[in-house]
Amino acid sequence: MANPEPSKRGAETHAPTGGPAVILVKPQLAENIGMTARAMLNCTLTDLRIVRPRCKWPNAKSISASSGAHALLEEAKLFDTTEEAVADLQRVAATSARLRDMRKGVTDARGWAQQARDGIAAGECWGVLFGGERAGLHNDDLALVDTLLTIPTNPSFSSLNLAQSVLLVSYEWHMAGGTEVPTEIKRKGFGSRLASQEVIVGFYEHLERELDAGGFLRVTEKRPRMVRNIRNIFNRARLNEQEVRTLRGIVVSLAEKKWNKPDE
Amino acid sequence: MANPEPSKRGAETHAPTGGPAVILVKPQLAENIGMTARAMLNCTLTDLRIVRPRCKWPNAKSISASSGAHALLEEAKLFDTTEEAVADLQRVAATSARLRDMRKGVTDARGWAQQARDGIAAGECWGVLFGGERAGLHNDDLALVDTLLTIPTNPSFSSLNLAQSVLLVSYEWHMAGGTEVPTEIKRKGFGSRLASQEVIVGFYEHLERELDAGGFLRVTEKRPRMVRNIRNIFNRARLNEQEVRTLRGIVVSLAEKKWNKPDE
Repeated sequence: MANPEPSKRGAETHAPTGGPAVILVKPQLAENIGMTARAMLNCTLTDLRIVRPRCKWPNAKSISASSGAHALLEEAKLFDTTEEAVADLQRVAATSARLRDMRKGVTDARGWAQQARDGIAAGECWGVLFGGERAGLHNDDLALVDTLLTIPTNPSFSSLNLAQSVLLVSYEWHMAGGTEVPTEIKRKGFGSRLASQEVIVGFYEHLERELDAGGFLRVTEKRPRMVRNIRNIFNRARLNEQEVRTLRGIVVSLAEKKWNKPDE
Repeated sequence: MANPEPSKRGAETHAPTGGPAVILVKPQLAENIGMTARAMLNCTLTDLRIVRPRCKWPNAKSISASSGAHALLEEAKLFDTTEEAVADLQRVAATSARLRDMRKGVTDARGWAQQARDGIAAGECWGVLFGGERAGLHNDDLALVDTLLTIPTNPSFSSLNLAQSVLLVSYEWHMAGGTEVPTEIKRKGFGSRLASQEVIVGFYEHLERELDAGGFLRVTEKRPRMVRNIRNIFNRARLNEQEVRTLRGIVVSLAEKKWNKPDE
């Protein structure tokens, strides 16, 4: 590449994770290899292996399609045979439909990901084979596989693109590691500035005073239930202090307007 | 289209599911709209809505990229505004990073999918907004949203392509509906033809007879443990009857060879 800078930046975005290897066997489209690298890095996987790519390699289209995950492409290991590509692995899965006629363990991507987390934590090396876009995997490749990995999809429309399959398997790997919404987002999203109950009840009482004054709550036997219903509406809104101030302003404004009207 | 046949075939592959609507707001690339339709149908979603696409519409590139999900494209509803696109929905989520500064509920795709299943089962209409590739969602769009939907990814490399985001959200919706490996695959993969313990133990005894004869198990105090270890190896293989026959054939063959050897 003419400019090595992006490569260096890309390299900083990942470190070896010990996650499962993704092995593309005779992939055809350079774009798909690039999108595979992107999907892997999105989900913290970095060990990309390619067995005899059908396209020129390395390939500018792959780099472009990787949207910044080009360091994975540069570090991808090339192999002449699938045997060599899986030589260091203890457990190898594949998503091929042709595995269905063989005698293998069967697990869906979510179950596989949990097993892979457990196995890798115990020191095992795991990998997944993905066949080329048209030909898929050869029987000799499948003989190396111990597990049929299924990706649950619509039975009437189940065909996934190569990079999409890699994305879903990688995503399940990532999810199996335990993820949660970062605290910062949670806080910004809902948390720290919620109004206290004192402030909120102060608003309720203000509102109810005005509703009493306006006659809205005049039917005594219905009043408790109506008050509860109204409070519940605002409770669900999980108000912050500023929003309570806004609502009190609205009540004041509406009430003033009402009292100022000549005939009502 | 010149040939209506593919369209009809496509239409047969889905029926309205009552799943959440996928709403693309000002998408730019026709290919991404097609790949979105494919990802949706892969995961049994069918309600595609498009607010002012930036590309020509309908678009042959979308149909091509949908890989057979073109019925969704033909039935996609077009809208001038996001307000109109969500008018019939009770719950609207979005994945925009800009939502982080607003006060919304926050949930990851997996949690959202379960909530959506529950809400839709209770008769609610749900949807998810996805912004255009470059511009994302406008603040006016985000004001219509009640939930920030996060897709857990590598914090150092989190950017997902539009169709990949749709795929992961749709996949979680599909998974939340309860999926399991179809019985047929399970049966073919491992199940029905497993050898009975009688057959398997018959093989063990055959093998052990030969090993006794060859002196392999000659150290009496070690024999029970060695036998257990050997049996465990084959137990883990979950043999079927044909495989037991194969193994017995191997034992016979090896043993005969051995006895026929002149000097051993």
